[in-house]
Amino acid sequence: MVADNADGGADTPAVILVRPQLAENIGTTARAMLNCGLTDLRLVAPRQSPLADKAIAASAGADSVLRAARIFDNTESAITDLQHVYATTGRNRFMVKPVETPRRAAAGMRDFIAVGQRCGVLFGPERTGLENDDVALADIVVTVPLNPDYCSLNLAQSVLIIGYEWFQAGDPAEPRAMTKGAQPPATRQELLGFFRHLEDELDACNFFRVTEKRPSMVRNIRNLFERADLTAQEVRTLHGIVGELVTLRQPKNNG
Amino acid sequence: MVADNADGGADTPAVILVRPQLAENIGTTARAMLNCGLTDLRLVAPRQSPLADKAIAASAGADSVLRAARIFDNTESAITDLQHVYATTGRNRFMVKPVETPRRAAAGMRDFIAVGQRCGVLFGPERTGLENDDVALADIVVTVPLNPDYCSLNLAQSVLIIGYEWFQAGDPAEPRAMTKGAQPPATRQELLGFFRHLEDELDACNFFRVTEKRPSMVRNIRNLFERADLTAQEVRTLHGIVGELVTLRQPKNNG
Repeated sequence: MVADNADGGADTPAVILVRPQLAENIGTTARAMLNCGLTDLRLVAPRQSPLADKAIAASAGADSVLRAARIFDNTESAITDLQHVYATTGRNRFMVKPVETPRRAAAGMRDFIAVGQRCGVLFGPERTGLENDDVALADIVVTVPLNPDYCSLNLAQSVLIIGYEWFQAGDPAEPRAMTKGAQPPATRQELLGFFRHLEDELDACNFFRVTEKRPSMVRNIRNLFERADLTAQEVRTLHGIVGELVTLRQPKNNG
Repeated sequence: MVADNADGGADTPAVILVRPQLAENIGTTARAMLNCGLTDLRLVAPRQSPLADKAIAASAGADSVLRAARIFDNTESAITDLQHVYATTGRNRFMVKPVETPRRAAAGMRDFIAVGQRCGVLFGPERTGLENDDVALADIVVTVPLNPDYCSLNLAQSVLIIGYEWFQAGDPAEPRAMTKGAQPPATRQELLGFFRHLEDELDACNFFRVTEKRPSMVRNIRNLFERADLTAQEVRTLHGIVGELVTLRQPKNNG
């Protein structure tokens, strides 16, 4: 099979599993890839088929990635079409090679692919990781910064971290958005209407006992509601709450 | 069990699994946590024990996290000591609540913890995710930006992404300035105490006329107060407001 015939390999990085041992891990890798919009899966001398039942089951619906996966005899033939190859390693190999975080590598791959250059990332076998000969084929090493006392990512988790950073690098995350659905925020007029309602009722029940403190207390109360960035509907709800709480307070039935 | 007795809960976010179904997923969660330096695992009504064989095996050596895990009957009791609660969701709940990426949430949690405030992240059951009532207990929603056409993170992968971002955020960032001066934010226990007070009074005045609508109305009301990021003092003020508004409602002088 020729790598140049890749379906979706040009505009996303290839994920290259070198000698993966278990079909299940090929499946979970496919799942992690598709989560991150990656579809170009290449397998170097896998011990089990990407179409084994366990792989399909573990892919949790990402079997399209498995079906498009391509199998190669050795690492070299799997990367012939690539211009930039990254090798993931969990430990320092003491090679003279740049070592990048996933975040930096993702930004780099975005840049390369934006100018039409192909990228791929090598992942080693589950237990042993990449051999030095495989790492030597890469131009850049990627290491995930994690707890130095316990670093035990499985194959699909390593793929997920790289894919996650790839996805984030392409999607300048929206600043803190509010999920308000169709709810418009309250106008200041609506907000002030609620403040007056509340403060009138608080005056009526003598909440502001110490007159000199009333202004600062009012400010503090207004503050906390202002911080909530209320919708118009929520202001109506608050009106309702205050109204109901005080309804029975009127000595209506005393006469 | 009392959450305040957490061993390592003060300087790292708590990971709170709400009604996890499978012991294996508790184990892989522990593994993902320890990879990222997280150790405070809390389980709400788990169907299987964190010390089940499958959990221990799946933890791949992170069983220290499982052994220290604490079990709670409900979500509320699992978060009483926390000051900032994040809810992970895969889809928009149309609640009026800030939605953050894992990266932003991690930076926020670093800032909070740097000034001594406790944080935790809620993760829902495997198949269904968090219920709206659980999401309503959080002040911030976290959603992982991933392939919109295929977003199928499993439990441990979600935990890994949050933990990974937490770990990455630990390097240089200076804590951002907090704008509340010396006022500490309310604990969830304080906030829940206010909610109960308010809801009891609203029940007493028959505010929730339509029984079926009560849960969603309660959620909406809790939401708006949670967004305000209340201080302990402000919660006391709100108690005072509700208390005063209803004081004369009692027919004390009717006899």
